Amino acid sequence: MATIRLALAQMNAVVGGLSENVGTIRRLSRQANALGADLIITPELALTGYPPEDLLLKQGFVDAAARSINELAHENENAVLVLGTVLDDSNPLVHLGASHDGRGGPGLSAFPRISNALAVISDGQIGAVATKRYLPNYDVFDEQRYFLPGTGPLTLLNVQGVAVGLLICEDVWIANGPAAELANQGASLLLVANASPYARGFPHEREAMLVERARETGCTIAYVNMVGGQDEIVFDGQSVVINKEGDVLARAVAFDEQLLIVDIDVEGSDRGELLLVTPSPKPAVPVIVAEPLPLLDEVYRALVTGTRDYLRKNGFRSAVIALSGGIDSSLVAVIAADAIGPAAVHGYAMPSRYSSDHSISDALELAKRLDIEITTVPIEPAHEAFGALLREATDSPIEGLPDENLQSRIRGVLLMGISNATGSIVLTTGNKSEMATGYSTLYGDSAGGFAVIKDVPKTLVFALCRYRNERALDDGDTPPIPDAVLTKAPSAELRPDQRDDQSLPPYELLDPLLELYVEGDATAAQLIRDGYDPALVATITRLVDLSEYKRRQMPPGVRISKKAFGRDRRMPITNAFRSEKL
Amino acid sequence: MATIRLALAQMNAVVGGLSENVGTIRRLSRQANALGADLIITPELALTGYPPEDLLLKQGFVDAAARSINELAHENENAVLVLGTVLDDSNPLVHLGASHDGRGGPGLSAFPRISNALAVISDGQIGAVATKRYLPNYDVFDEQRYFLPGTGPLTLLNVQGVAVGLLICEDVWIANGPAAELANQGASLLLVANASPYARGFPHEREAMLVERARETGCTIAYVNMVGGQDEIVFDGQSVVINKEGDVLARAVAFDEQLLIVDIDVEGSDRGELLLVTPSPKPAVPVIVAEPLPLLDEVYRALVTGTRDYLRKNGFRSAVIALSGGIDSSLVAVIAADAIGPAAVHGYAMPSRYSSDHSISDALELAKRLDIEITTVPIEPAHEAFGALLREATDSPIEGLPDENLQSRIRGVLLMGISNATGSIVLTTGNKSEMATGYSTLYGDSAGGFAVIKDVPKTLVFALCRYRNERALDDGDTPPIPDAVLTKAPSAELRPDQRDDQSLPPYELLDPLLELYVEGDATAAQLIRDGYDPALVATITRLVDLSEYKRRQMPPGVRISKKAFGRDRRMPITNAFRSEKL
Repeated sequence: MATIRLALAQMNAVVGGLSENVGTIRRLSRQANALGADLIITPELALTGYPPEDLLLKQGFVDAAARSINELAHENENAVLVLGTVLDDSNPLVHLGASHDGRGGPGLSAFPRISNALAVISDGQIGAVATKRYLPNYDVFDEQRYFLPGTGPLTLLNVQGVAVGLLICEDVWIANGPAAELANQGASLLLVANASPYARGFPHEREAMLVERARETGCTIAYVNMVGGQDEIVFDGQSVVINKEGDVLARAVAFDEQLLIVDIDVEGSDRGELLLVTPSPKPAVPVIVAEPLPLLDEVYRALVTGTRDYLRKNGFRSAVIALSGGIDSSLVAVIAADAIGPAAVHGYAMPSRYSSDHSISDALELAKRLDIEITTVPIEPAHEAFGALLREATDSPIEGLPDENLQSRIRGVLLMGISNATGSIVLTTGNKSEMATGYSTLYGDSAGGFAVIKDVPKTLVFALCRYRNERALDDGDTPPIPDAVLTKAPSAELRPDQRDDQSLPPYELLDPLLELYVEGDATAAQLIRDGYDPALVATITRLVDLSEYKRRQMPPGVRISKKAFGRDRRMPITNAFRSEKL
Repeated sequence: MATIRLALAQMNAVVGGLSENVGTIRRLSRQANALGADLIITPELALTGYPPEDLLLKQGFVDAAARSINELAHENENAVLVLGTVLDDSNPLVHLGASHDGRGGPGLSAFPRISNALAVISDGQIGAVATKRYLPNYDVFDEQRYFLPGTGPLTLLNVQGVAVGLLICEDVWIANGPAAELANQGASLLLVANASPYARGFPHEREAMLVERARETGCTIAYVNMVGGQDEIVFDGQSVVINKEGDVLARAVAFDEQLLIVDIDVEGSDRGELLLVTPSPKPAVPVIVAEPLPLLDEVYRALVTGTRDYLRKNGFRSAVIALSGGIDSSLVAVIAADAIGPAAVHGYAMPSRYSSDHSISDALELAKRLDIEITTVPIEPAHEAFGALLREATDSPIEGLPDENLQSRIRGVLLMGISNATGSIVLTTGNKSEMATGYSTLYGDSAGGFAVIKDVPKTLVFALCRYRNERALDDGDTPPIPDAVLTKAPSAELRPDQRDDQSLPPYELLDPLLELYVEGDATAAQLIRDGYDPALVATITRLVDLSEYKRRQMPPGVRISKKAFGRDRRMPITNAFRSEKL
């Protein structure tokens, strides 16, 4: 048996931020060396952030990443550093084992020439390289747009007498794939670098797969994941080490940076490319096995993390939110206060002639409980002035939908004006049920910089509010969301006595249908065959299809499902596949 | 020698519109049969429209496409129909010759299981199938998200004693690739089905490649292209038949449906899978060789076609446009009038307290020349009411940028209100130089359903206006755009005496830099090394990077360049790769 000390650098990389990321890797690497680590591994593309998207088409960016690798190589201490990075073959040290097979294009510019890789830094040099074979090109992923698939031999290292196989993310998901191949070549430890985006319940699935893979291969698996938010995606961390029996030896926390240090005892071996590790003293370190989170807790933290990182990484220090006294804006305000602190959140109540008294009092009560500032600005003067202009312009009375949209847009313009004057970002409050059905006003309630709960269906909004209130009670605090907000019937209050259920079916009925149609890729005809009410199906699917143009203009928001609106779901706006097929 | 009569069905398919597309194919197919065609070929994915995007993830859609193929097969007349369609292997008649190699995913749902294919319909059945090998996954293309690459043998048919090879789009671009392989197998005629999106100058490049490929392979090439607009993409048609010497035998028109009938004389052969064609009388048909268009004409028609089809395919019969008297809105109005007729276009002049007299008179003169309706709505009452509300909300004077944005947003809200009240679509007027630098107001001048010239740099806006005026003169008409519009200094008129060149460098300097940075994927450091002024480069690249969040919320518009904002350019919003690298 041989023992090896591993350091999994679960880190929050910034896309494009080469110098920030070098700084983070350097800091964690020094810590790991001080703790006697033999091997340090970063997440997938830790150097560039994930996903770097079309930055990868800029050769100047790829070159700058290469310079950053050299910088880290020169600082290399005792431990071997396995660094997630983009690589091209302009570096003579690097043979990528990737081919152009199966690729084409009207010009050379269309051929990917770079790899999603691991650079193994040892003794001040790039001692080995591993490239990703299976490039995900589904959901939010576009890896075949950028990378050549690895086709060369897999990478097996010999570190301190242990045969260590290297894998990147997708490659470990393949049953009887690269992991098994490395095991056949004698690997007893597999290091897997990942940028695995969060979706509700997915961390559990992922870990179950790893347990299966460990048993299948008879290898110990050390899986290091990214953490933090990047535009619509949030990474949950929860890096994990699993032995060949499928037992979890260590697990990092969710949604926060952590350096996970683990001693692994595995079979010794003389296989693999020999890498020099200078032995270093190994102080005792506590074993960390963080508990997995309950489902609602997991989702809530994903929303907080995604919001916090979008603001921080884009330079916003404060946020403004329209508070209607409704449940959506209440949840967004609580998330914002948890993400950036109540002092940085400012609510605006903007009652119109149709707003109920309770909508204002509920908003004020929420602000009081959250300890955020709130300002009331009645919109009547603008509503009146605009109504007159619109009547003049169209030579017709402005009522019904045009008047409802008008109120919503007046609020949007006000909030954006406040944002321009104060430098705060506008957080929008629409939920996924609204996004799906188009039950929102373009440039109105949907106007803003970040749509915190755009991937949260209304029924889950309720559940998250109740969860957050219960957590407060558990902590001995006042529940942030007033009971009245949780119990009143949802309404946009854009006309007298309006209620959501006048335009939409009850959310308990709507949300499961939307999930099947949007996330499940069902067709209307299938839903009807499965027994759903044909009229309801026709109405709902038509609403979803016809509001694609609105969704295309929505701000980004945190992805918490397996199919969010945004990069994840790419439906044409112009789309004639409709109810004709019922 | 053998003679074969070909029919190239250059058609305008609707994405998702299976029954519409079946109707179009049926109509052209009957016409072709009546004219004695032996072989009819449609564009790539003619049955589903291109690109169907995530409709392809709906199995119910793929199944519906299969039923449509059968429908067409049952109606099959004498000629062989080569139909562009999606195919999966659920049809027992179909062996796709595609494999799962190189694909992976956390679940089965991540594996593509369908092919971008040609179904060869002969004698009432699917007689053969061809699948696309090279799947473009760059620029606007996401084909590896949906399709398995073809890995089986290429498809060679024997039709009337001629060996006919089948190819799909990208496959013909590969030098010494599938085209050469088919030639080696004895093909003397290559049929290529395409959905080749337009970009400025690209039709010329494309035809030059085809001439080269014809000479390389010694085959006659019949290249049929899609025509019409689909969201951001427009297909230019210009289907072409080129003999092995590289001479153009026939060329269809640009941007319109056309059935191109051509008799081909080629070497006879006994190679290829024999398909039955019932010989039919062959009336004399004139040979069509449409002239390629001059560059500005080509771009202008692309804009008209893209706009017309977006409106038509999305059910809009009329459009409203904010007319400022400036050159951008003037060009958009002329394009709209050309696309849907002047009677369906309504202009709105919405002067603020800072608008010059000439801005209104220029707008009125334009409307008069175009014969479109125009309404003047001064926005002062709303500006005043809103200014007061914003002062109240922020407790500060509203001036500078917040006040400029406010005016722009008031116009946006007005136009959207008019749209809601009348059912007309709002056409926005921002150009590519503005989109790139963020010189526009989110939810203000950028608010609307379709951004006609979002991919047209300002200098090209001027050139297109001059071109359109000259064309009018050539036709003996009044030039639509008043001279004053062409000669005055560009200004947003959001403060007294504002001119664009106070915020931006002159467009003659700006546009080439933007082209290098955006379309050329240069980095700031490269531009400086290439001799551009460092301060200018720093300013411009920073403006481009920082306005990514705005572009993400822009309406779609016609792509006329090789890299448009939209699906084409996928930059992260959160992106720390900036001037630090200068």
